[in-house]
Amino acid sequence: MTVSTFTRDDLETLPSRFRARLINSLSGFKSANLVGTADDAGVANLAMVSSVVHLGASPPLFGMVMRPETVRRDTLSNIRQHGVWTLNSVSQPILQQAHQSSASYDADVSEFDAVGLTADWLHGFAAPAVAESPLSMGIELVEIVPVHHNQTRFVIGKLSWLEIRRDVIQTDGFVDIEALDLVAISGLDGYHSTSKLGRLRYAVPDETADWLPDEGAGDIKPAVDLTRFKSALRR
Amino acid sequence: MTVSTFTRDDLETLPSRFRARLINSLSGFKSANLVGTADDAGVANLAMVSSVVHLGASPPLFGMVMRPETVRRDTLSNIRQHGVWTLNSVSQPILQQAHQSSASYDADVSEFDAVGLTADWLHGFAAPAVAESPLSMGIELVEIVPVHHNQTRFVIGKLSWLEIRRDVIQTDGFVDIEALDLVAISGLDGYHSTSKLGRLRYAVPDETADWLPDEGAGDIKPAVDLTRFKSALRR
Repeated sequence: MTVSTFTRDDLETLPSRFRARLINSLSGFKSANLVGTADDAGVANLAMVSSVVHLGASPPLFGMVMRPETVRRDTLSNIRQHGVWTLNSVSQPILQQAHQSSASYDADVSEFDAVGLTADWLHGFAAPAVAESPLSMGIELVEIVPVHHNQTRFVIGKLSWLEIRRDVIQTDGFVDIEALDLVAISGLDGYHSTSKLGRLRYAVPDETADWLPDEGAGDIKPAVDLTRFKSALRR
Repeated sequence: MTVSTFTRDDLETLPSRFRARLINSLSGFKSANLVGTADDAGVANLAMVSSVVHLGASPPLFGMVMRPETVRRDTLSNIRQHGVWTLNSVSQPILQQAHQSSASYDADVSEFDAVGLTADWLHGFAAPAVAESPLSMGIELVEIVPVHHNQTRFVIGKLSWLEIRRDVIQTDGFVDIEALDLVAISGLDGYHSTSKLGRLRYAVPDETADWLPDEGAGDIKPAVDLTRFKSALRR
């Protein structure tokens, strides 16, 4: 294949929009999450975020990148005020509405109303979930870490509650997020559906990791009974 | 749909492997990158990382999460020593080898040799790229940010050079990473190919963002001539 080389100086010569789209594409596929927050007047805010990462399972921690506060940033300001937000996975049926929430609405306009999604106030949380999302979490602020080099913020939070379709949790804990029709993001504005290649076994030296059977790793004994957790017909 | 609720206390009652797989699945699809480093003896190291995020385009910054140093962490230790690493996108043809590199090899074993990938020493960089990857970047260390809550590290670096197939860069800068057969990750070990849904236009209030035509946004004038950048037939 013909491969081109770009140095950092080369990239600086490119038009800024071109460069932004290019650099944004280089890290690979990204998750699509709607971040739900509320301000002091109770106005529900919604923001599309592609930078949510897993930080740890015990305690259950997530991080996300927020851009510099050179302009109004409702989400970050709401998180500072109330210390909570929701993460709501973006599925194909709500993709266009989710993307539309990234428009610059005035602070007193709720993106929920503007794009036609439903704010769900769950578990006494001071941040609304997206009723139409098949996977929602309530997150409590742990730490806002400043990135000195470009004034972005790495915002870290701990899972408080999780709402998810029970049937997509496999017997070993793996969640079949593809069954929830979640989308993947590439670059600033590219959206993708996915097709399962499979799961690969835990790798050990001197073997070649093989594909797991569809039912998962089968290493949890006794089996976990998820029916003991509260379920409800919703949405 | 029937939705189940899990509180943080509920999650604590689950077997630790089950919980780890569950929590790891919740943030959505993730990028698949091989991180290439080298130690002082010149042993090339390779690690699979699913937490690379875009931090900014100007300067071009990326972040990634590294786990606590309670055991030997060759990648982080090499990054501390030499201040550089490579990010190499994982495509379908090298997926099983990439996954296998996550096995616990001894420090003096190069994962490149163990899994059968080729170390490419490019641009005088003290970290090897993966010759078989269709998108490689050289990254220079900017900052290692400690996450106080769980002893992970958020490692931040600046792009130094980029090697990519020129034909997948669209006229407005967007990169068609799907054309490179890149995989997406879900949970700890789930792998997916993707199908393009499309790109959505930049959202503005009071409209509904529409799909872009296949050739992109068309807002870069004059068109960028990429043939002026160095190209070579490789791999």
